[in-house]
This record gives sequence, structure tokens and C-alpha cells, in this order.
Amino acid sequence: MSFALDPRLAADSVAVGDLVLSQLRLMDDARFPWLVLVPRIAGARELIDLDEGDRASLLGEVTRVGRMLESLLAPDKLNVAALGNIVSQLHVHVIARRTDDAAWPHPVWGHGERIAYAQDARDALLARLREALGDQLS
Amino acid sequence: MSFALDPRLAADSVAVGDLVLSQLRLMDDARFPWLVLVPRIAGARELIDLDEGDRASLLGEVTRVGRMLESLLAPDKLNVAALGNIVSQLHVHVIARRTDDAAWPHPVWGHGERIAYAQDARDALLARLREALGDQLS
Repeated sequence: MSFALDPRLAADSVAVGDLVLSQLRLMDDARFPWLVLVPRIAGARELIDLDEGDRASLLGEVTRVGRMLESLLAPDKLNVAALGNIVSQLHVHVIARRTDDAAWPHPVWGHGERIAYAQDARDALLARLREALGDQLS
Repeated sequence: MSFALDPRLAADSVAVGDLVLSQLRLMDDARFPWLVLVPRIAGARELIDLDEGDRASLLGEVTRVGRMLESLLAPDKLNVAALGNIVSQLHVHVIARRTDDAAWPHPVWGHGERIAYAQDARDALLARLREALGDQLS
């Protein structure tokens, strides 16, 4: 079995680029700066099912992505989560939260309706993210 | 500054015991088997702020707690998250979810009202958790 991105994740988000282990994606929801890391491991479902090396690599990538969001956007809080109740393919959310955002202090999942980015705004954010990640992206 | 458990976490949960880095607590909510790991690091707020050794230790403890829940309860999904929008003290949720639980497929946070355990049921679950964790608890 080879890795294939879950179709629902594919539909709700756009690719930022590939980290060493994970595909990094931007949720197409203009309400929140919301990234998702999807390790390119066929069949992965739970964090605890990864082998130790992959789990450490994933945590390293989550950390670097979180730091990038912090330096780029200076959020009030980061939310980091692996839930998978709807899309069971392993994916880790890293979301830059603000105390004045649309869902604060609640979690973002299932809160109201997703608002897709205007294409210009999405392209501009993608460019900023890619520049900030630099050679971490392949 | 020494470590002190956030008063809201203290009020909403009970101690299971101490892992090497984290205090392990059971949320007093009979709707979900819901554990919280609180690293005993004064002032810790974000996963990305921990030094690398502490972050790896915390991930190891999250993994062991997740595996313990899986073997004890055979949940349909684990939810693992560091949010901190309400309690900013760093804490990681590890929740055993079932497709027939009170919030599925939504996240548990902010879903309806917490239902405290009956004392017998809470004591019985604490005993099972402590037995399953064995010498991981000090």
C-alpha cells in the first residue's frame, strides 16, 4: 500500500509543500491560520502506532512549523492536535489562535462554517509560509 | 518559580499519579475516558517552548498513556491535543473516543456539560489506570 492523501483532507486544504516526513497543508479557512501535517506513511492512523523514529520526526516537524507560525504571526496561542474522528488518516493540526478569532476560546473544529480564502489572500499567505519555511520544504 | 498545578485543572480533574515528567490526571467527566498530562515545568505554556529533551520525554509519556488506554479500553480513536485556550498551563489531553460517545465525532472540549463520576466508578477507574501503568507511576 502506498501513501495517498485522504480525499477529504485534499478537498479542504491546499499543499504548502513537503517536509522530510510530512506533507504540509493549509486549511482553506480564512478564519484561522491553520496548518496540517500529514506524515507520508501509508495506513498511519494513530500517533502511538508510528515507530519511534517517525514519531520523533513528526514531533520535530510540528515544532518547526509551530515556531514558524509563532514568528510569522505572533499568535496568542498555538493549538496542536491529532484527532482524526472524521478523517482517520493521521494528521496533526497546528493552528495559530488569537483571542479575537472567530472561535476563541473554543477549538476550531466544527465551529461554524469554513470560509474559503479569496484566491489572492491564499496565494499571499502560501508565499509567506513557503518563504518562512525556506529549505525545510523540498 | 516552582511548578504549581493550575487551579482550574485541579478543580476539574483528579490525580492518577506522577510519571517521570508529568502529573497524570483524570478529567472528572464520566462521559469520556479523558486523561491529561501536565509536565511539572514551571511556566511552561507551549509545546514548542520546551527544551528538546523535555519535549521528547513528554511525547514518550503521551505515547505510553495512549497505549495504556488502547489496551485497557480498546477505543475507536485516540484524541491527543495541546490546546490551552482556557488554561494556559501546558497540558496534553489524551482521550479515548468511541463512535457512540456523547460528543462523537466532535471534539470533547466545550461539548455539553461535564458529568462528574459517581465516586465508586471514579475510584474503580483510577484503580484500573494505576494498575495498568504499574511502575511507570512514582
